[in-house]
Amino acid sequence: MASTMEKHQKEENCSKNQSPEADCVQPVKCPVVIDDVPLNGPTLNVHAAEGFINQAMAIIMEDAVKKATDVREKVCEWCPPEQLKELLDLELRDRGEAESQILQRCRDAIRYSVKTTHPRFFNQLYAGMEPYSMVASFVIEALKPSLYTYEVAPVFTLMEEAVLRKMMEMIGWEEGGDGIFNAGGSMSNMYAVNLARYHHCPDIKELGLSAAPRLVMFTSQECHYSISKAAALLGIGTKNVYVVPSDKRGKMIPSALEELIKAAKSEGALPFMVNATAGTTVLGAFDPIEEIADICEKHDLWLHVDACWGGAALMSKKHKHLLKGIHRANSVAWNPHKMLMACLQCSAFLVRDKTNLLQRCHSAQASYLFQQDKFYDVSYDTGDKSVQCSRKPDAFKFWLMWKALGASELEQRVDRALAMARYLAQEIKKREGFRLLMEPEYANICFWYIPPSLRNLPDSPELWKKLHTVAPVVKERMMKRGSMMVGYQPHGDKANFFRMIIISPQASSQDMDFVLDEIHNLGKDL
Amino acid sequence: MASTMEKHQKEENCSKNQSPEADCVQPVKCPVVIDDVPLNGPTLNVHAAEGFINQAMAIIMEDAVKKATDVREKVCEWCPPEQLKELLDLELRDRGEAESQILQRCRDAIRYSVKTTHPRFFNQLYAGMEPYSMVASFVIEALKPSLYTYEVAPVFTLMEEAVLRKMMEMIGWEEGGDGIFNAGGSMSNMYAVNLARYHHCPDIKELGLSAAPRLVMFTSQECHYSISKAAALLGIGTKNVYVVPSDKRGKMIPSALEELIKAAKSEGALPFMVNATAGTTVLGAFDPIEEIADICEKHDLWLHVDACWGGAALMSKKHKHLLKGIHRANSVAWNPHKMLMACLQCSAFLVRDKTNLLQRCHSAQASYLFQQDKFYDVSYDTGDKSVQCSRKPDAFKFWLMWKALGASELEQRVDRALAMARYLAQEIKKREGFRLLMEPEYANICFWYIPPSLRNLPDSPELWKKLHTVAPVVKERMMKRGSMMVGYQPHGDKANFFRMIIISPQASSQDMDFVLDEIHNLGKDL
Repeated sequence: MASTMEKHQKEENCSKNQSPEADCVQPVKCPVVIDDVPLNGPTLNVHAAEGFINQAMAIIMEDAVKKATDVREKVCEWCPPEQLKELLDLELRDRGEAESQILQRCRDAIRYSVKTTHPRFFNQLYAGMEPYSMVASFVIEALKPSLYTYEVAPVFTLMEEAVLRKMMEMIGWEEGGDGIFNAGGSMSNMYAVNLARYHHCPDIKELGLSAAPRLVMFTSQECHYSISKAAALLGIGTKNVYVVPSDKRGKMIPSALEELIKAAKSEGALPFMVNATAGTTVLGAFDPIEEIADICEKHDLWLHVDACWGGAALMSKKHKHLLKGIHRANSVAWNPHKMLMACLQCSAFLVRDKTNLLQRCHSAQASYLFQQDKFYDVSYDTGDKSVQCSRKPDAFKFWLMWKALGASELEQRVDRALAMARYLAQEIKKREGFRLLMEPEYANICFWYIPPSLRNLPDSPELWKKLHTVAPVVKERMMKRGSMMVGYQPHGDKANFFRMIIISPQASSQDMDFVLDEIHNLGKDL
Repeated sequence: MASTMEKHQKEENCSKNQSPEADCVQPVKCPVVIDDVPLNGPTLNVHAAEGFINQAMAIIMEDAVKKATDVREKVCEWCPPEQLKELLDLELRDRGEAESQILQRCRDAIRYSVKTTHPRFFNQLYAGMEPYSMVASFVIEALKPSLYTYEVAPVFTLMEEAVLRKMMEMIGWEEGGDGIFNAGGSMSNMYAVNLARYHHCPDIKELGLSAAPRLVMFTSQECHYSISKAAALLGIGTKNVYVVPSDKRGKMIPSALEELIKAAKSEGALPFMVNATAGTTVLGAFDPIEEIADICEKHDLWLHVDACWGGAALMSKKHKHLLKGIHRANSVAWNPHKMLMACLQCSAFLVRDKTNLLQRCHSAQASYLFQQDKFYDVSYDTGDKSVQCSRKPDAFKFWLMWKALGASELEQRVDRALAMARYLAQEIKKREGFRLLMEPEYANICFWYIPPSLRNLPDSPELWKKLHTVAPVVKERMMKRGSMMVGYQPHGDKANFFRMIIISPQASSQDMDFVLDEIHNLGKDL
């Protein structure tokens, strides 16, 4: 290999007298060439890309910020997959394209994307544009930090710590705890299952489950599907997730939980954790945490609260009662990217433990990253708490918006969203052809739309069968018109119904009225 | 609850005669108030935030793009944790701050952050500023898409598919396969372990591992620590990761692999997968994939190739021989955010299987998200392949830069980085006081710096003990001066050495010379 190098290096004895500081971007007299590649001077000059970046930023501002959030514009420009593929010219080729073409590609990508920041996007558990958080995310994308070590991400390491501390304070863990931001609530729930398991059986980390007893966990039938995914991934098995019945409002029934725990024990299985949900995905229900905590204490089970969606209520003096008892949880998942509108993704996993359980459970002590002979306090190198290696500093997106808005404004937003949900529920009850599943407790409003042709039918399986087909058609028409986005789903034995999610202060009571009018307009002929 | 609502709603009988389209941002005559919250009109107007966003973008352009990539500026402004905490005023309070203050906070966050896009950042397996990819990431942050369903992310769903298809073509899977972008290479490796396990024992998804045989996997001693983390997380156990010895260059020894497989079988364990590394983290070594594939075929083991770092060589006609045989892998992890400089994170997991194994392994069929009665082809709803729920459209960051640069420019960049690595190795061999660990095969250049005081010592344990302390001190001084960032680590029985990673076309041979000069200047008195 050395001889190849010498052959290619044409002027290796040429004296190097350029100052590396001053001359490195200028042409040099003494070319360095290896393997036919000239190596003097950079071949990518960011300065030269400034014009492109500025033009692209102007397009983003115009199309992806202003137009995307303008209530007079469409929420989506529907295009079926095959047609969109052609429009976008997706193929990746050998030759690059002109910058003007790339700018057009940005415009097209924005045009045909769903505007999740539009005031009439009610389809998911996140919505809206948060300017401060968005700016924070731009800073992150430009700087490309990764959160394993203090050395590489000093600012964001400290911000993560500060945000986690504040979130723990809101939960009521007065003595603090530990935590980590990660790539979504599903991962937070997965962390919870792993930590609970490690807490009960630390040997499993090394020895695996094949020699372990059958571990069993408990969650309600209304929980997020990530609990089941975590059980599958972690080798616990989905059948070892015992599903606790919920009441009519979607809340876990504590007595049913206790019965299941006893049943599992009598089968010789080892119960190790309970997942309580604070804000279920479909109904927005809150499991009774206090009563569940009592049962967990009695049976020595780890209590995890999936508050990804409902955690925001902790910001509100008026609504935090929904999570009463959450301070008794061993761990909590809470996504500020949902109700609190931090830029996607912003998901915290919090642990009450103060014995470094998170790190002990996940550490692999990579010597190339977590050297112990560094010149600073390596307890700031938080990467070994994570199952990821590169990890984005998502906490900054929440930190900056909190600094800008203060807890008081965050509280007002939560209060307003929940008041808006009540307003919508009330309007639904007033209008003919709309039927509420239940009074909302949080920001999910679930309802059926009954077209005039079905309104006089008796409440029978036939009616529900017909009703089941209404929401999908209304949804199709809604998407094709692009006027708004509202989700629908079947749920248990319930026929397809709409689920409105209210989050953003960009939406108003007029938008709620519009949603009901529009559903009627789209579906009245069905 | 209904009565509370009625009490608070002060003017519920007021007629609603505003057009929701035209008047929704104007003051209305008929206030809607619920729970003391006025609900008419939006309380967040993105239009009003335009000035702030524009100012913030200007700061990002100036400080996080131009200054961060300017070779005359510092790579980092070192500040120890306690001091930085005070400087940043991290506490989150009840009241919000003025926009001018928030802009200053952005400036400070940028100032004290490490400039990973600086031409002299050589500390991690990623580096450099890629303008097209950065712009793509800004588009993503503004639009807030999430990749579970076509309906919510039509453009990015199709782009992900196109990028995965192209990457599979580069791997040599002529008949295609399947894949998913996810939050980092550690997650890709975790997917591989789960898929391999599911392929061998599909019942584990439901039943868990407690009733399963002891599963054993194989990887080299040089592999990334995420393999071990995956085994811990998935309940396989770190002791069931059998560590195959590597040769002096860091490549797995195939005969040793086969011996270990036989040993595991004779113990009654069930071998199920081999992880081969293409581009190890420290040495940049490539395991001999062809020979490993032969062994995997013989023993019916899943072959995963962790090409997170080395996959980029597939873009180069000159260097793709390093991954010879990769088309025989069952799965591949490949991070375009590393050598190919896509914005963090951009990590692909690719599977050769065409029987929907990825979806079958991970699916939970959430009915609120993956409705089967949608009006479009729901095979475009890719979310159930993932263990995440929200997932960012990272493929767009690679797609846009590929469109701009073409495969040809990507190839040139890889060729140039590897030529630069050879140049640096050659300079190290020429200079007194520098000692190469081995000739680089890829873009990792590992070397010791020996200060003059140690140069005349005999090659003894005492020398190595002293040498072990040199790199940490040089690193400390380097960080405090902020002139560059180069990593160091011990490795096996090797004392602390520097590891230079060469990626970005912003760096030149002058920067290589600078690195060696600077290390000497920083360490010559030791």
